[in-house]
Amino acid sequence: MPKKNAFYAQSGGVTSVINASAAGVIETARRHRGKIGKILAGRNGIIGALREELIDTSKETKANIAGLRHTPSGAFGSCRHKMKSFEENRAEYERLIEVFKAHDIGYFFYNGGGDSADTCHKVSQISKNLGYPIQAIHIPKTIDNDLPFTDNCPGFGSVAKYVAISTREAAMDIAAMCESSTKVFILETMGRHAGWIAAAGGLAAEQEGDAPHIILFPEIAFDEKKFLARVKRSVKRYGYCVIVASEGTAYKDGTFLSASGTTDAFGHAQLGGLAPRLAQMVKSELGYKYHWAVADYLQRSARHIASATDVEQAYALGEAAVEMAVAGKSAVMPTIERGKGKRYSWRIGEAPLDKVANVERTMPRNYITRDGFGITDLGREYLEPLIQGEDYPPYRKGMPQYVRLRNELVPRKLKKRFKV
Amino acid sequence: MPKKNAFYAQSGGVTSVINASAAGVIETARRHRGKIGKILAGRNGIIGALREELIDTSKETKANIAGLRHTPSGAFGSCRHKMKSFEENRAEYERLIEVFKAHDIGYFFYNGGGDSADTCHKVSQISKNLGYPIQAIHIPKTIDNDLPFTDNCPGFGSVAKYVAISTREAAMDIAAMCESSTKVFILETMGRHAGWIAAAGGLAAEQEGDAPHIILFPEIAFDEKKFLARVKRSVKRYGYCVIVASEGTAYKDGTFLSASGTTDAFGHAQLGGLAPRLAQMVKSELGYKYHWAVADYLQRSARHIASATDVEQAYALGEAAVEMAVAGKSAVMPTIERGKGKRYSWRIGEAPLDKVANVERTMPRNYITRDGFGITDLGREYLEPLIQGEDYPPYRKGMPQYVRLRNELVPRKLKKRFKV
Repeated sequence: MPKKNAFYAQSGGVTSVINASAAGVIETARRHRGKIGKILAGRNGIIGALREELIDTSKETKANIAGLRHTPSGAFGSCRHKMKSFEENRAEYERLIEVFKAHDIGYFFYNGGGDSADTCHKVSQISKNLGYPIQAIHIPKTIDNDLPFTDNCPGFGSVAKYVAISTREAAMDIAAMCESSTKVFILETMGRHAGWIAAAGGLAAEQEGDAPHIILFPEIAFDEKKFLARVKRSVKRYGYCVIVASEGTAYKDGTFLSASGTTDAFGHAQLGGLAPRLAQMVKSELGYKYHWAVADYLQRSARHIASATDVEQAYALGEAAVEMAVAGKSAVMPTIERGKGKRYSWRIGEAPLDKVANVERTMPRNYITRDGFGITDLGREYLEPLIQGEDYPPYRKGMPQYVRLRNELVPRKLKKRFKV
Repeated sequence: MPKKNAFYAQSGGVTSVINASAAGVIETARRHRGKIGKILAGRNGIIGALREELIDTSKETKANIAGLRHTPSGAFGSCRHKMKSFEENRAEYERLIEVFKAHDIGYFFYNGGGDSADTCHKVSQISKNLGYPIQAIHIPKTIDNDLPFTDNCPGFGSVAKYVAISTREAAMDIAAMCESSTKVFILETMGRHAGWIAAAGGLAAEQEGDAPHIILFPEIAFDEKKFLARVKRSVKRYGYCVIVASEGTAYKDGTFLSASGTTDAFGHAQLGGLAPRLAQMVKSELGYKYHWAVADYLQRSARHIASATDVEQAYALGEAAVEMAVAGKSAVMPTIERGKGKRYSWRIGEAPLDKVANVERTMPRNYITRDGFGITDLGREYLEPLIQGEDYPPYRKGMPQYVRLRNELVPRKLKKRFKV
């Protein structure tokens, strides 16, 4: 096999550990100098490939690449750009192949969620159609934890840890205040279609009566009457009520409790504002004083309290992707396989991309309590190992020291510009 | 001096280090067994004294009292109950003295902000009027950092650290996404009358162009036109704009932005959210895609990333309060005095309560840049030392292990009940 360059890109919403996968890819590829030449990273994801804006990662120091492991967000930039089908947008795929050819790229590592698994799969197909061989490997990443085949998705464990800790801390706050002040606290979490993140709030509880008293999942149709009854019961019993609500909480007919009315590049409704909506409901129907928080980006960028397990797995998946490529594989995705033993263990598995693309894994019903407001022991057993360990970044002057890359582009080789 | 019992109570909004002050009080008092008998804590603050619900801290293990140092929120419960003037509510003061007498309490340690400093001062006066000697010492606590005489207030340093780190992390997130998606991120912080907390977001920046690009202070009248122009400039220059906004941001006439009633795309009234209000402004006037977060309780309970300096000072102030009491002082508050040297140093000072009560210290104008949207070098010099050091709590199963006290009440001695 002749030596080829590699292309790596980050896709979709970033996480606190996607750069750990990047470190895994780059450090592993650097060990395979016989087979892999330069590792070029897309500036702002796949857009960088289309625009021929390719970052030369060989210009980055060893220390900075290692430092990606403790650096949140996407160090090369990410994007929300969904590549349509070959029929709908042939020009984009042809452009990709053209850029890959020009830069002698034979490996395509795409680090993202469901949409990017789909793109990655298409690239592997198109490379065959267009007669230019590309080994396309997808590296899973999504805080939503909704990819199939893998036991969990890198990025999720850290957001889960953040949400569990924040729920516990805020719950202690309201517990101290509730006698004479706030009675209801609502934490709105991310999770449009799957309740994994909100579910993690359940890990805050240790014993009967502990917060959260209510978790709202997108998987369970919202019933205002039942919800308010539960809020009231919790305030009567414990003096206060803590609610962790997934932004994707919706009525039976699928209407989100709150939508700002705008949509993102993929046509998904842009959500936010569920917490104030619930607060208003509680206030007007029950009269309780409330507080609410919307964690938004804070939850997915909180590298300061990342799960050590998550960081390790994110790195290992990047590493595995390169090993798979070097072994001649394509159109696959390395996965996390959970061991069968009682004590948590995991190893790297492998899934074919044609099966991964566009499948969304929501919470199994048996991870959610019968009443729809909490997690079961089974759910807890699944979630708990994913938040294990603290992987603190280094600090200077009281602040975490995250890496800033040089992000130097390689010279363009194509005359044609491509508008994205 | 005959041996007397002590009363300790937490007041107002809790913080991630108020329990460190409690640990300072209790551990120090336990070392003065010759002068101080039991340390009784008010269940839910001063309400506990009025109701004669007194927690016997001698029932708590040494390990648990030590563990308060790393436990956020108020371990004995706090309250929002402002005691009015002696003339307006003589019954409450008389009840306090009655309860103190019944339980042989000669020391009153009140741990709170401006209102509780006022109450503490009144108790010291009333004890003279009613002829029952009480040494009343106030221990400063407030995330708002608005007490006079002390260089800073315990609780503030940790919330400042949380806000600075969250701003840096969220800014890295949007920086990676802005090319094809979100352009504006807004973090709403606490701080109704003083901009100290929002100001701390400024510590996220290291070099020109770094986030936050805009800080909104209650001290600076909000000017929509200037604000939008600055948002636009930031997006043009850097590709994105990060805003840290104090909840107390108000128009020139004093109207809070958050109070100005607006409705979302579906006609729902938008509640108490400054951040969504600003987001809507940005969207409708500039058309940028936005994200916003409201940290609310998360910021003041985030013990997982507390400032080591803050923890140390909170403990030291609790310790100092007891030493002052033992030395025969009353109607005083231990303070933090900053050393004059270039290298940050601090020591415990002392302020008379009659001067502390009801004075609110806002940001000095020269800590805020001339344009009103950032912090000056002077502001940074003040803030930076307060977030130094990480004081991590212990973890088990991936979660911080915070102390739960037994909170056993001592038997009542009074027949009369008192309604609060």
